[in-house]
Amino acid sequence: MNDLIREMFFPAFDNPILGQGLDAASLHVPPGRLAFTTDSYVVKPLFFPGGDIGSMAVYGTVNDLAMVGARPLFLSSGFILEEGLPMETLWTVVQSMRLAAEKAGVTIVTGDTKVVDHGKGDGIFINTAGIGVLEHSLEIGPSQVRKGDKILVNGDIARHGVAVLSVREGLEFETHIDSDSAPLADLVATLIRAGIEVHCLRDLTRGGLASALVEIAEQAGLSIGIQEKLLPCRADVKAICELLGFDPLHVANEGRLVVFVPAYQAERALELMKAHEQAQGAALIGEVTAADCRGQVIMRSLIGGNRIVDMLSGEQLPRIC
Amino acid sequence: MNDLIREMFFPAFDNPILGQGLDAASLHVPPGRLAFTTDSYVVKPLFFPGGDIGSMAVYGTVNDLAMVGARPLFLSSGFILEEGLPMETLWTVVQSMRLAAEKAGVTIVTGDTKVVDHGKGDGIFINTAGIGVLEHSLEIGPSQVRKGDKILVNGDIARHGVAVLSVREGLEFETHIDSDSAPLADLVATLIRAGIEVHCLRDLTRGGLASALVEIAEQAGLSIGIQEKLLPCRADVKAICELLGFDPLHVANEGRLVVFVPAYQAERALELMKAHEQAQGAALIGEVTAADCRGQVIMRSLIGGNRIVDMLSGEQLPRIC
Repeated sequence: MNDLIREMFFPAFDNPILGQGLDAASLHVPPGRLAFTTDSYVVKPLFFPGGDIGSMAVYGTVNDLAMVGARPLFLSSGFILEEGLPMETLWTVVQSMRLAAEKAGVTIVTGDTKVVDHGKGDGIFINTAGIGVLEHSLEIGPSQVRKGDKILVNGDIARHGVAVLSVREGLEFETHIDSDSAPLADLVATLIRAGIEVHCLRDLTRGGLASALVEIAEQAGLSIGIQEKLLPCRADVKAICELLGFDPLHVANEGRLVVFVPAYQAERALELMKAHEQAQGAALIGEVTAADCRGQVIMRSLIGGNRIVDMLSGEQLPRIC
Repeated sequence: MNDLIREMFFPAFDNPILGQGLDAASLHVPPGRLAFTTDSYVVKPLFFPGGDIGSMAVYGTVNDLAMVGARPLFLSSGFILEEGLPMETLWTVVQSMRLAAEKAGVTIVTGDTKVVDHGKGDGIFINTAGIGVLEHSLEIGPSQVRKGDKILVNGDIARHGVAVLSVREGLEFETHIDSDSAPLADLVATLIRAGIEVHCLRDLTRGGLASALVEIAEQAGLSIGIQEKLLPCRADVKAICELLGFDPLHVANEGRLVVFVPAYQAERALELMKAHEQAQGAALIGEVTAADCRGQVIMRSLIGGNRIVDMLSGEQLPRIC
């Protein structure tokens, strides 16, 4: 274990804080409010088109920090390895984490590795926790959402779930579908720096767009209306979802978020997003239609009907993240 | 999953930060340096005499923060649950975490839960990450250790490993052995507040006292001498270790640490420790005998011989923490 740490983790995540080799990392953080979050990653398989468990474990936690408007600074990483895991597999995952951390501008400063017996794990599970700093005075969250707010999404939905499923189930499609896995903190920072009064943010992971919107509607006690014709979703992804009986609204994404902004800033926010690498396919998909209610999400369908959007009970796709 | 979070985790870990239900917790921390650490817990079985995976996941991470002299403030908790886990088991573990967090004075402010298929996990794995604040100007770590420093331990060694093993292997002893699992941050704070110039701290978990001392000797490039006759270890624990072919020096502890202090303060530090709930069995076990060397640990045995203390290669007891 000592050799593993010295020869694999220390060089890969090379930085002076981790290199101290202490029980806890000692950090200098800017004064002010901090954000703190954690996620475990159990995606199956470990590698999928457009990503792997390593990059996902970095981006996922970075994105959770970004959803409260924080600038991500530091990550921890905890590995649970199954006995018999090929070291090349671990190496590949660790290198992917290193690259993802560079891309997202975070430093992995502390870590831990445990090994469980064969048949008591599944290759690699990773937990990352993250610390970010809040460098603005906005409160971002469901409580800030107001009637009339416009809702933007940063690109086409449902790709991550379909990409993972395709390799897991050995499905072959005539088309190539990459996960949308990506870091979103810079996109959020771009909006805030430009003076957009971001009211609420949420990344569209497990449970998809539907879960994110229903959660916000319920937490804030307001009604949301979206339009199916405005929802960006690739035709091939939509076709595969139809074939498999999935609703793209419920399929997980890893690099997608919704942004709630005041109506008067919606156009400007959309422009800023489209100019950003992580939101070129951004779209306005709906608005907040009523406040002070029980909270629900209604989608106007392509044929003009109204449909209540629900959270799924149970998991549509287990181990997608 | 939403129900699980609402009905089990939120009430158990009840606090306003967690209750916000955001992707990341927003924290106010005192200005200054922070400490950050993580550990995953895969102990088998989940419940053992004197503790369980829940209390351990809190104390273990709290203790890692304490080992750099930090006051623990906030924890994250990430659960990986195996499908089919009885909900009562999870409930018991969560209640144990709640009590342990109260006892250790930390707040669980953010969390995550993943479920893996039956046979791909082992009941419950828990990751906790922790944030603490450094409220003193001491640098604590191997680099601060000096020739002549005295080495103190806060109680009898090897109980945790033997306690876990006894239930795992279904061994029945005529004696009752509880794990030493306990939070150590208050003990460390007591020493620092009293003006003890703590040079180095390390908790004696996986790999036991031997690994902790060898790591410090190697990291600092100094030699350490300890005396077997000064090592606190219960006679029944020692007898069981002998029977099973284990060396108590290598057996894991969960509430034990070594403290390196300047010689002139050793007596005072020992007094302070003995007056503290978590160190009533404290003892001076040795000293730093040479600096600027390759670094090794020598133990003078009961019969007067000198033995080089090594780290074990491989794990003596897998899944002990």
